[in-house]
Order: sequence, then structure tokens, then C-alpha cells
Amino acid sequence: MSKPDQRVRAAVLGTGSWGTAFAVVLADAGCEVTLWARRAEVAEAVNSTRTNPDYLPGIELPAAVRATTDPAEAVRDADFTVLAIPSQTLRANLAEWLPLLAPDTVLVSLMKGIELGSAMRMSEVVEDVTKVGPDRIAVVTGPNLAREIAARRPAAAVVACTDDAVARRLQAACHTPYFRPYTNTDVIGCELGGAVKNVIGLAVGIADGMGLGDNAKGSLITRGLAETTRLGMALGADPLTFSGLAGLGDLVATCSSPLSRNHTFGTNLGKGMTLQETVAVTRQTAEGVKSCRSVLDLARRHGVDMPLTETVVGIVHEGKSPLTALKELMSRSAKPERR
Amino acid sequence: MSKPDQRVRAAVLGTGSWGTAFAVVLADAGCEVTLWARRAEVAEAVNSTRTNPDYLPGIELPAAVRATTDPAEAVRDADFTVLAIPSQTLRANLAEWLPLLAPDTVLVSLMKGIELGSAMRMSEVVEDVTKVGPDRIAVVTGPNLAREIAARRPAAAVVACTDDAVARRLQAACHTPYFRPYTNTDVIGCELGGAVKNVIGLAVGIADGMGLGDNAKGSLITRGLAETTRLGMALGADPLTFSGLAGLGDLVATCSSPLSRNHTFGTNLGKGMTLQETVAVTRQTAEGVKSCRSVLDLARRHGVDMPLTETVVGIVHEGKSPLTALKELMSRSAKPERR
Repeated sequence: MSKPDQRVRAAVLGTGSWGTAFAVVLADAGCEVTLWARRAEVAEAVNSTRTNPDYLPGIELPAAVRATTDPAEAVRDADFTVLAIPSQTLRANLAEWLPLLAPDTVLVSLMKGIELGSAMRMSEVVEDVTKVGPDRIAVVTGPNLAREIAARRPAAAVVACTDDAVARRLQAACHTPYFRPYTNTDVIGCELGGAVKNVIGLAVGIADGMGLGDNAKGSLITRGLAETTRLGMALGADPLTFSGLAGLGDLVATCSSPLSRNHTFGTNLGKGMTLQETVAVTRQTAEGVKSCRSVLDLARRHGVDMPLTETVVGIVHEGKSPLTALKELMSRSAKPERR
Repeated sequence: MSKPDQRVRAAVLGTGSWGTAFAVVLADAGCEVTLWARRAEVAEAVNSTRTNPDYLPGIELPAAVRATTDPAEAVRDADFTVLAIPSQTLRANLAEWLPLLAPDTVLVSLMKGIELGSAMRMSEVVEDVTKVGPDRIAVVTGPNLAREIAARRPAAAVVACTDDAVARRLQAACHTPYFRPYTNTDVIGCELGGAVKNVIGLAVGIADGMGLGDNAKGSLITRGLAETTRLGMALGADPLTFSGLAGLGDLVATCSSPLSRNHTFGTNLGKGMTLQETVAVTRQTAEGVKSCRSVLDLARRHGVDMPLTETVVGIVHEGKSPLTALKELMSRSAKPERR
């Protein structure tokens, strides 16, 4: 005689650290969550030990989070279908899942990247593959280092959808005492902020590696955000989004955190290592290393001047020395702060 | 047969760390600089050892910087008269110097504070005392930790004046290979950014003392800047100034730096010390401790909601526990990011 379950149902596709941490948030906010794992041992660990030892070691997952390797089971009847897989694999994976999706589900992207080649933002890839309207595509972004969220340390975030009512439904579905989501209708700005911050994070890391100090850090973050805003305006974003959580907030968290891969990677470059040496030491490539080229590509297509992004591309991909790059940046002609 | 000296002449009134560092910048940019020191031993040290051991130990001052204890000598024929004394002493000192000032000199404020009682910004105090027009009052601000500038580490800055031509003259007078000034005509926004950042710096310090993490840091800086922007708009500032060097840039440098007094002070409060204990440990009061009340005063006069500033006042002056304050902040009703 149990009454039908009125809880919001969410599917989270991907068991990386941010996907898993967001599943914890959704469960803590009262949702029933099904996590899709590519590998059986991950699903098995979640269901039997209530942990994801590879990506969130030491964090106990709430009982409302279950895992499966069957995508059909994961997405069935989901109010929200949360996409949390590597950016460059989205198109292929989503095409495969398309026939399985619940008819009115809202597709939520947690991914911060620009597709190589097409230079599309993640929500554009979602729309391109699924033909779903923008009122059913949302983005969650902001200063959200996954390990801190999973440890229930406080953070604010942005949930963005061109349809404000949908953004508010998602806001309610993930609002907890430690996770405070704000709504925003500027999807373009929110996604761009997340993608470009990886590039600026690299620049700040390089400056830290060179020992330039905190004034330089403040200057780089500010001027980096200014050029991101110029690009955003050319693409139709609201300039104020970049001074919000999806721009500034995310950037500050990234540049403050010793956990950030882009920052660590940049620090090694700033100390004088080559790209090859840095990759050898960190054993992985930072997202900004890939996306600096697609961001610069996007900027050139729209005639936007992005001197910091250009500098990062020069250092990372063209072997320019950080010191030469710094001198070039500082010797540009004197300017007003806004043009 | 020497031809008349064509160099720009600058007086810097005050030998604190930032006044002295800015004198170095002006000299490196080609100005002839006279530094006014209140104490004879400081002037003596500058002239005989080319150092200011109390405020900038270990930094050699350029030959173009001379010091005097005579204000009349300091300000004579100065193209720029730079004010670098404690905020709350400005009114009395300036009244005394008024008859000495060169007739067409531009008054430049390096000070970041709000006058207690009057709630005036520093340029308003200058205008009030001297009756000089706004086209002869300028402000230098931004991410400018004095010790880093004096060590010639790179930084960007803002020179603001309602008269753009004056801002450009000042920009030229202080542009060096390591100090990159941008012009801005929004004096209100630039000064407000500098004053409120001390309050947000305290909030971030408190959060760091509580061990809240980098997401919280990113969130606090962003929401702190959002409430500063709301106040600025009510006072007639340009909202974009706050995402520039005078807002964001300065705030990030302050919150990143172990040298920042506001941050250190806040950290002690966040660890659970009372105001009295913190003052005892740090042996001084941070600027934000005083200005949080005048900022809140200003906000209330203009009907602006500043939840973070209110929280800082509660913790610093009303004995509220940081944990209670955090819970209150996080449990405010769910909101859109911009209103």
C-alpha cells in the first residue's frame, strides 16, 4: 500500500570525481540517483561498499545513490539526465544513449570544454546530437572542486538554462545546506567561463612557477577575465556572467587550489620545463592545454583580441619562453582599462 | 648652461610602504620625486642610505628620490601631489598643507578607506578640504602589494580621474616595464573597490581560518564583489569597474597574499579567537575592522543589501560565532544570480 514515489529521479552518466560528487549533492537534496559506470567494478564498489575508491576515496555515498553499467536502466524515467563524461567523448556517447533517454528529461551538462574541430560548447553538442530544444538543456558550473563538495564543504554554484522555470526546478533538485545554487539564463556565458578558466588557470600557474607574486596573479586573473568577457560578448553572452560564479568564482577556486591540474601543469612550465617534460612529470595533460587552441580559434573567428590566451598557446605549443612572453605582455602600449 | 629640467615633478606625502614603493615607480618612470617624511630619521635614512628601513627594508631607492620633513619643500612646483598617509588623518593633514600646494598640481590619492563619521571616500575628503575640481583629483589603485612593486615584480594598476586627459598624464608619469597602469574615469567605483575589498578580505580570512576550502573562497570573493557592485551602482559607479583591477584584481591579490593584514586578522577570527585576542596576537587592527562599519552604514543609507558585510560586522563587532554566521548565509532562500 505504499504510495508512488514522488521523489525527483536523476541519472548521472559518468563516475569521475565531479559526476560522483554531484550525485552526492542530488541525493542529499532528496533525489533518487542512478549512476552509470562504464566499468563493472566501479558500479560494484558503489553498490556494495558505498564508495568510489578510484575517484572519491574516503567519501561514503548516500543510500539514495545506486550504480549500474546499463545505460538504459540509468536513464529510465529520469527527470534530469546529468552528463559527466570527458568533453571529447560526449558526441559519440550521447549518440549511443539517444534512443534510451526519457521523453521529457532535462539534459544537464557538468562538462567544461570546447569540442575540438567544431569549437562547439558542450550544450551545443547536446543540442546537435539530440535535437532537443534549449529549454531542456541545462548547465551546472561554478567554483566546484569535486573533493570539497563531496566532503560537504560549502560552495555556491550556478544552474543555467535559457528557460528560467527549468533552471529553478534544477536549483530545487540540488540545493543542500552546503551547496547553494543560483539560477542564471545565460548558458553561453556560463559555459564559456568554465572553458576559458582552464586557459587562464594555466597562465596563473606559469606566473606562479616564475615566482611573479600575488600582484601578477591578481592582474592576470582580472585581465584574463576581461578577455574572456570580450569573447563572450562577441558570442552573445551577458558580460556580467563573467564576474559571477561561473567566471570569477570558478577561476579563483581553480587558481587557489593545489588540487587543480591546470595550475600545477602551468607551474611546471613556468619553472622552465618544456611541454614534454611537464607531461612526463604530471603523467597527464591539463584540459587548458587542449582548449587554449580551440579558444584562440574561436576568438580569431570572431575577431576578438585575447593576448593572454595567445601567450599561453605560444608557451605551451610553440616553445616560447615564459620570460620573453612576460616582456611582450608588459610592453604592450598603455591602454584604458575598458575599450 | 644646463637647459631647464623638463622632468615631471612629483611630491609623495607619506613614507609608509605603499607611498615609498610608488615613489620608486615614479622615479623609475623618469619623474623627479620628493618624499615628505613626518620623522627626521626616515628622511635622513632615505637621503643618506637610499633606503626606508622601517617600511621597505632591503630595497634600494633610486637616486631621483629625495626626502624632506618640510612639506613646503616637498610640494613645491609638483605636477603631481601624491597623498599616502593613513585615511583617518587625511582631513587634518591636508588642511595644514593646503596653503603650500602648487597652483595647478593634480592631487593623487593612494589611500583605500572611508572616512569614519562622514562616510566619505578619500577623493571626496580631498575635494571637501581643498575645493579643487574633480579634474585635478586622481586615484591610483589595483593589485599593488607594496613590497612586490618595490621589488620590481610585475603588476597592473588603475589610474582614475573623471578627466581622461589627466588620467593619461598620470599614466605616462608612472608607466614602467614592471608597472602597467590602465586609465579609468570611474573614480567612485575605483575607490569603493579598494575600500570594500578590505571587508571581503576579512571574510575570506575568516573562511580560511575555519578551513572551508577553495570553493568557499571563490564563492565569497564572487558574492562579495556582487554586493560591492550593488553598492557601487547605488552610488553612481560603473558596475564593470568592480570586475576590473580596482575590484577583482585588488581583491584577489589581497586574498592570495600572506602579507595581507586583513586576511591574517580574519584567519585568527575564523579559528575562534575573539576580536580582543586577535588584536593582542597581531598587535594591530586591520583596515577592514574599521571600515566594515562605515561600508554597512553607507549601504543602509542607500537601501542596499550586503549580507557578507553584515556578517563580518556581526562576527567582528557583535561576537557572532563564525559557524552560526555561515549557517545563516547558506540557508538564505534560493536566488537567481543577478537581480
